[in-house]
Amino acid sequence: MFEIVEWKNNTVVMIDQRILPAKEVYLVLKDYNAVAKAIKDMVVRGAPAIGVSAAMGFALGALKAKQKDKKAFLRELKKVSKVLGATRPTAVNLFWALERMNGVVEANADLSVDALKERLVQEAKTIHKEDIEINRSIGKNGGKLLKKNWTVLTHCNAGALATAGYGTALGVIRGANEAGKNVSVFADETRPFMQGTRLTAWELKKDKIDVTLITDNMAGHMMSKGLIDAVVVGSDRIASNGDIANKIGTYMVAVLAKEHKIPFYVAAPLSTIDMNIKDGTEIPIEERDIKEVTHFGGKRVAPTGINVLNPAFDVTPNRYVSGIITEKGVVTRPYRAGIKKLFSK
Amino acid sequence: MFEIVEWKNNTVVMIDQRILPAKEVYLVLKDYNAVAKAIKDMVVRGAPAIGVSAAMGFALGALKAKQKDKKAFLRELKKVSKVLGATRPTAVNLFWALERMNGVVEANADLSVDALKERLVQEAKTIHKEDIEINRSIGKNGGKLLKKNWTVLTHCNAGALATAGYGTALGVIRGANEAGKNVSVFADETRPFMQGTRLTAWELKKDKIDVTLITDNMAGHMMSKGLIDAVVVGSDRIASNGDIANKIGTYMVAVLAKEHKIPFYVAAPLSTIDMNIKDGTEIPIEERDIKEVTHFGGKRVAPTGINVLNPAFDVTPNRYVSGIITEKGVVTRPYRAGIKKLFSK
Repeated sequence: MFEIVEWKNNTVVMIDQRILPAKEVYLVLKDYNAVAKAIKDMVVRGAPAIGVSAAMGFALGALKAKQKDKKAFLRELKKVSKVLGATRPTAVNLFWALERMNGVVEANADLSVDALKERLVQEAKTIHKEDIEINRSIGKNGGKLLKKNWTVLTHCNAGALATAGYGTALGVIRGANEAGKNVSVFADETRPFMQGTRLTAWELKKDKIDVTLITDNMAGHMMSKGLIDAVVVGSDRIASNGDIANKIGTYMVAVLAKEHKIPFYVAAPLSTIDMNIKDGTEIPIEERDIKEVTHFGGKRVAPTGINVLNPAFDVTPNRYVSGIITEKGVVTRPYRAGIKKLFSK
Repeated sequence: MFEIVEWKNNTVVMIDQRILPAKEVYLVLKDYNAVAKAIKDMVVRGAPAIGVSAAMGFALGALKAKQKDKKAFLRELKKVSKVLGATRPTAVNLFWALERMNGVVEANADLSVDALKERLVQEAKTIHKEDIEINRSIGKNGGKLLKKNWTVLTHCNAGALATAGYGTALGVIRGANEAGKNVSVFADETRPFMQGTRLTAWELKKDKIDVTLITDNMAGHMMSKGLIDAVVVGSDRIASNGDIANKIGTYMVAVLAKEHKIPFYVAAPLSTIDMNIKDGTEIPIEERDIKEVTHFGGKRVAPTGINVLNPAFDVTPNRYVSGIITEKGVVTRPYRAGIKKLFSK
């Protein structure tokens, strides 16, 4: 089908998600700075895909480091980690992946520089491979929640393109359909970056899953017409109490789902859960360039001289969430206890 | 400032709202078919402005009619009325204006063809003039509902550009600010046609009213942050029970307002109220070209081969409405009785 992010001939290869679906272009990134820039500029996006990319960026930084001396090499790795960690603040998978790579460095203090380089490249490849397996488990666990012939609304793209492959929210759709449930999808276009229009519609069509594109502001109307049976979205960071940060507009969908008594599910791997924070108020929300809102295809749409806001994410309090679908099972209320249990399994 | 639709040298002159704010271009329409096309293509939009334009189109059709014989002239007027009435189905002001013009024809059966032409041109000019006066009354009545330094969210453009001038929802903002209330505005961009970005932001900036542009899916987030004190929107058709048809996404804003205990007001002239229908389920919802959703600036954004929906309006049930602001006062629950009373005054 297509690869989202791949380790290939000692480079990191990414499909450029900014220009999909018009063109399918793969970028070959030859150093960690290029990977950091690709994450920041949203060549790659989606919390799990950002995590995998950060791990590969770390491995690339290690591999291409010129330092022969171990101490100097470790200093270089600290720099690599810092640069990659400064790309995007909200998706915790980025920090999770860097922590895991740094953990490998610490756990292998006795290895030579060359052996450590090899070990880090191996770890990045493992994270990539595990991510796909995790998504298949999420798909299996979440697929059971959907009934035959249901139509599911999703927001943004929590699909194959947001992960190493298969997807989280769209993994749940795939899981349901692999179990013969014939689930259709309504995709919010997801302003301002249009991940729904450009990415979700594109990958579902490639997979021959029935998809209907709507603007974000149509979601309530479609629910009121009885056209939506459930909502499934991904997440960029889940607080230890089950509050959910996800693409801007997710909160709106959650409120609408509650009003229409439609279940609202969140699909995410354990690496998206941040046990270090008490609730959603502690999740940093990235503000992006206002040009994403005022311009379209490089052309200005809005008048000059006005105020513009562009938060990339919002927080949905746990009271709106019907269930969090993970690779280790589905967590329901009370979330704090349920999430704690996930990590003790 | 600028004229939205104007009778000038026996033509109808309209500002082309499709290309605002990039260019301020005025189209000179020389026959009723051109006016009908302008309404259909959204050169002019907004329920009251559509009503005024339809009246002027009718007058232009009459004025340019070549029939000398009265009977043949009346047949031509029927055709003019039919063509103008087939342009857009949702805004009832269109039909209200045509009915008023046809009423003039019926009430002046004794006039000659030339005298009737003159009378109809006069009526169209009167409708134009009255619309501005009505909006000023709406602004005065609604302005009282807003408190000092409030921030009001609005959806789409129910401003000067949606009327003959001054606006309905934005008329309420203007009314409040003329009373010294220093009200600021958050404008939803309003996909897919971007009336918020292109029109509301533009006309508020021209008027030096503080305006902040957001994408539609940010409205909930902004409310949850306590940044919105009230919602004021316009309407394209109000049923006799107070159900409200307005630009797609209005229903979503109403649900969000309810969830955050923020008042949700609708500002509209009596000509927007359709006493012939029982409730909102009877309001026809226009489906527009899906290219509005799949393309941007003539360029395709979405992949081909997917389903797309593009309803231009939605219906907000009266239970979400805190008040309907008209030129004759503010109506609150119970709406059916309150609306009936409006027409008996």
